[in-house]
Amino acid sequence: TTPITTKIKKRLRYSERRDIASHKAVKRLLSIMEKKKTNLALSADLTTTDKLIKLVDEVGPHVCLVKTHVDIMSDFSYDGTGLRLKELAKKHNFMIMEDRKFSDIGNTCKLQYTSPLYSLSDWSDLVTCHGIAGPGTVNALSDVIPEGSGCVLVAEMSSRACLTSSEYKESVLRIARDFDNVIGLICQRKLSEREDILYMTPGVNIDKEGDRLGQQYHSPEEVIIRKESDIIIVGRGIYESADPVASAIQYKNRSYSAYTESITIPEH
Amino acid sequence: TTPITTKIKKRLRYSERRDIASHKAVKRLLSIMEKKKTNLALSADLTTTDKLIKLVDEVGPHVCLVKTHVDIMSDFSYDGTGLRLKELAKKHNFMIMEDRKFSDIGNTCKLQYTSPLYSLSDWSDLVTCHGIAGPGTVNALSDVIPEGSGCVLVAEMSSRACLTSSEYKESVLRIARDFDNVIGLICQRKLSEREDILYMTPGVNIDKEGDRLGQQYHSPEEVIIRKESDIIIVGRGIYESADPVASAIQYKNRSYSAYTESITIPEH
Repeated sequence: TTPITTKIKKRLRYSERRDIASHKAVKRLLSIMEKKKTNLALSADLTTTDKLIKLVDEVGPHVCLVKTHVDIMSDFSYDGTGLRLKELAKKHNFMIMEDRKFSDIGNTCKLQYTSPLYSLSDWSDLVTCHGIAGPGTVNALSDVIPEGSGCVLVAEMSSRACLTSSEYKESVLRIARDFDNVIGLICQRKLSEREDILYMTPGVNIDKEGDRLGQQYHSPEEVIIRKESDIIIVGRGIYESADPVASAIQYKNRSYSAYTESITIPEH
Repeated sequence: TTPITTKIKKRLRYSERRDIASHKAVKRLLSIMEKKKTNLALSADLTTTDKLIKLVDEVGPHVCLVKTHVDIMSDFSYDGTGLRLKELAKKHNFMIMEDRKFSDIGNTCKLQYTSPLYSLSDWSDLVTCHGIAGPGTVNALSDVIPEGSGCVLVAEMSSRACLTSSEYKESVLRIARDFDNVIGLICQRKLSEREDILYMTPGVNIDKEGDRLGQQYHSPEEVIIRKESDIIIVGRGIYESADPVASAIQYKNRSYSAYTESITIPEH
């Protein structure tokens, strides 16, 4: 008789995932997550360089990834912001993802990505892309994205009544499969069986359920254990906290404990 | 007996549409189209201010709208680029649409729109938004967009294998209906019966069928007559031409003739 254990699919550890992955950026991020014992990404949505750099320097030791929106900043400069972020990434050992949400035809995205005003490729490791414009977006970025950098496709969003239907998500997964430089998904749950890409989930907050502009929040445990995502992305839960470092540690501990719990207790 | 003519739906003239429309930006754009006899929009995808300003000053007399992508520029500045564009808009009587394709949660879009680096609201009349993140995007912009300015929702794209399914388009039309500041659609055809918004179609080129990054082109007549769109958006067909002014005039004449033809020959 077949033992019942063969039916149980164990969740893979970061080290096992790292061996399966082929893209350098995935291997690197998983190594950081394992070494620093953190699956927390900071969404650093601050509008001035001074505040951004201060926050990232303080919270950097606790995160595997810092997600930026440079076009919300009032004083972004390549030297003053981009290169300083890159120094902090080296100092604290995290990766940087610019959450540009590229969503235009290929030719335009290529021009946006390579624009010297932001010089995204020089200081960010990852950039986010929507699938809405079709495969042309990622295809065009493939021409210009440096070795070791990658795209993260937005398959699901955390906002109320967003238009990422099942059909839409399937198409995004297809684009992800077709292009080697897609290294992960922005999603609300582990959307596919693939273990060689990373699943990152925004809209995580311990204290709130949402904002008045349509954002909806979930807990770290729900996202990591129940929805089997890899990385929680936390913004306001950290930078609007009275003590951002203490909050980051709290998110890190809860989210990493959720991971360790999920690799020790088999799925049922 | 009912006369057969009651079955024929005549295409409305710009002046009739202007009377139906309630939003100031729609009324203004239709007035410009009628006065200047042009339904041509220039997609001014140039990467330096000098080239952009030169092109817009030359082509400005022939267009109703200039569409920009300021984040592809290497030297954008508010004074040097934004305000000069605004002066040209006044000089040549056209409106400006920044093709930002906002596509994030409301809170982020609000920060992006109001960022002083671009100060979009000061010099652009219209901004484009995707529907992907749900109604939150447009809702958040409603808080900050000035009186007389509006959003244009991207309902369809011109790129190969884009993900704007019928279901997706229906949802975008619903968002357009729910928010007064949505003044038009980026689409490949007149997507609804509404006469109080404008239908704008990119991917128009007389000489080419596409590029190698997934763009697909159509002729002005196909877009204006057969697909009943209001405005053709032309980029490379003009700015990559050896004589951009001559090309603009050619696009304008063909596109406007298509309009006059379609209001005189009843639909069948």
